[in-house]
Order: sequence, then C-alpha cells, then structure tokens
Amino acid sequence: MKLYDSGGPNPKVVRMFLAEKNLTIPTVKVDMAGGENRKPAHLARNPSGTLPVLETNAGNFISEVTAICEYLEELHPTPALIGATPEERAVTRMWVRKLDLGICEPMANAFRFSEGLSFFRDRLHTEPEAAPGLKRLVQVNLKWLDAQLEGKTWIVGSRFTLADILLYAFINFFSKNGQPLDPALERVGAWFQAVKARPSSAS
Amino acid sequence: MKLYDSGGPNPKVVRMFLAEKNLTIPTVKVDMAGGENRKPAHLARNPSGTLPVLETNAGNFISEVTAICEYLEELHPTPALIGATPEERAVTRMWVRKLDLGICEPMANAFRFSEGLSFFRDRLHTEPEAAPGLKRLVQVNLKWLDAQLEGKTWIVGSRFTLADILLYAFINFFSKNGQPLDPALERVGAWFQAVKARPSSAS
Repeated sequence: MKLYDSGGPNPKVVRMFLAEKNLTIPTVKVDMAGGENRKPAHLARNPSGTLPVLETNAGNFISEVTAICEYLEELHPTPALIGATPEERAVTRMWVRKLDLGICEPMANAFRFSEGLSFFRDRLHTEPEAAPGLKRLVQVNLKWLDAQLEGKTWIVGSRFTLADILLYAFINFFSKNGQPLDPALERVGAWFQAVKARPSSAS
Repeated sequence: MKLYDSGGPNPKVVRMFLAEKNLTIPTVKVDMAGGENRKPAHLARNPSGTLPVLETNAGNFISEVTAICEYLEELHPTPALIGATPEERAVTRMWVRKLDLGICEPMANAFRFSEGLSFFRDRLHTEPEAAPGLKRLVQVNLKWLDAQLEGKTWIVGSRFTLADILLYAFINFFSKNGQPLDPALERVGAWFQAVKARPSSAS
C-alpha cells in the first residue's frame, strides 16, 4: 500500500485513523499548495484531483477518506474504528454520513467559496454566493449535534470511531479558518477537547 | 428487520437495493407529506427526522441509505451490490461518496431551498440564497461525471452497484423537480436509461 498525502482536513482523517490503528504505511507527499494534485500524474490516480489517495495492494487508487478507512479496517480489523459487528458498523456508517452531508461537506464548500476563494477559484468550481448560507446551515447542524451528544462520550456513544476522527479533522481545520466553534456548543466543545487529547490528533 | 419507508429519492435507494437483492422485508409507511416524520415517534427512531430508517434484527434504528445498504449487504452478500472483496468495496464506496457529496446532497439541498421551499421551510433549516449556486455546482459535477463514464457501463465500470442506484434515484426525482438532466450529457443520459431499464427501477 502507499498513501498519497498532503495538508488539509481530509488527509488528516486518514493519518489519525492509521495512528489509532498503530499502522504505518509508505507515504508520498503531494504538493497541494503548488497545485501538483491538479496535474496529470495525480489526476490519473484520482480524477477528482483531491487528496488523500490510497494505492491498494492490488494497485487500485482509492480516494475519499471514508472508503480509504473502510479498506484499512477490512485489512486491519483491530482496534475496530468502524465496528466489530454489522450492527456496530451500521451505527458508525450512519453517523459518518450524517456528519459528512450535514456538517463536513458544507463546511468545506463554504470555505472554498469564501476564505479559501483566492486559493480555490482557479482550481475548482466555486460559488461565493452560497458560502454564507452553507455556513449558517453548518451552525444549525452543529447545534443539533450538540443536543445529540447529551450523555455520550463519543459521536456513536461509548465507542471511539471514524465518526469522531472525521468531524474532529474538519472542525480542527475550519475553526481556525473562518468558522470558529461556537462556545455555546458545550457538548461539542468538550467532545472536541476529548479527541484532541488523544495522541492520534497530532498526526 | 423492519423498514420505515416513504416517497422521495432516499427511500427509493433502499427499495431498489432490496429489489436487486430479491429481498422483501416488512415495511411501515410513514406519512412524510403529513409531517409524521417530524413527530416524536419517528424522531425517536431517527433524530434527523429523515426517511428511510431500518430497524435491525438487534433493534437498532439505522438511518442514512448508504449505512442501511451496507448492513443489508453484510447480511445478504449475494448478488454483491457494494462488492465481493475489500478492493471492490473500496472502489464502490469511493464512488458513492463522490456522488453523495458532489451531486446528490447539493442537488437535494438546492431543491429544499427552492422548488421544495414551501414544503420544507417549516420542517428544516433552509437557505434559499444558496440554491442557485448549489444547482450550478451540481451541473459542473454532472459534466465531470459524464467524462468519467467514457468506456464504462456502470459508475464503477463493469459492475452494477449501489453507486448506480444512489445516483439514479436522485436524478430520477430531481430531474422532474427543477433540475432537468442536460441532454448534452450523453453518457449520463445513456447510463440513466440503462438503470431505468432494470426492473428494480420501478421499486
């Protein structure tokens, strides 16, 4: 296996996932700031031009962090970060999609369309007019999540999972880049600090 | 198992998935038009208030169609609609997330914020100002997908998968509701007709 890596929230998801599994795999840094990910060599790995990408044992190039983490968990099931049973995996996947669609992707698009506009406008399609609405949508969904965290340690309950890693990596990046975490969201704030306290958060 | 079902694109994904697997499970219709999904009985099943929801054998309530379909595939692996190997599953999951984030969710949000506004404005958070930008983003991503379909029968290549079902259900619904499929996207158009020709598309 080989991981094509860079800065940004998505690559951090995979690095944290690997660290939690105590796995090390060969890594190639792709110069995203220099636009290397939008050039033919990387587009051949991933026509979306995004990072990270995992080159699998069979030579497939897998992009999209949830797909990469699922693959890693299939090959290295312990410790389970998605789940040890179909029921556990279903609960984790449910939360991962709720976070991905309701928080992570609108948060990232809002950034690409506003604070990140000068960087992204020549690299992908941007819609500046949509940024304020997407930011408000994210805040509404984070407030909803705050209520859902009542009585829970981690996003799915008592298991630390990919859902925690995914949301942590996104909030960690975007809270410093135009979408600060509202201090009124006390449960989200406490959960964020609990993830940050794990050694993997430095990955 | 028990499926809580309704109209709309997401529930259709699960019904098509079940039909392709030749599975029948007990189904309860929830009156989405009448707002039953936003009342306490359904919110106890799914705090997001969305449909469908699968009640599993162990009594968990699973929302989010990708999580539901993964669970169904784990219990009924044949025919494989996600994949028969970790490599196959990784490729399918990669495409499912590309479609979910780049096309399906912005398409659905654009609808909720425009043609669907009078229905949704009292049911969830809406951002009308973001609708035109999200619609344009979807068109850009569909054009990208059209190029990716060159030489392929299905989204991932030669295997019919959850990726096809997901995108079909969304285009089928929203192309009749304010986001018509651009006839210039010839490969997407041919692919759409190929999915429509499968008996499961009537589910």
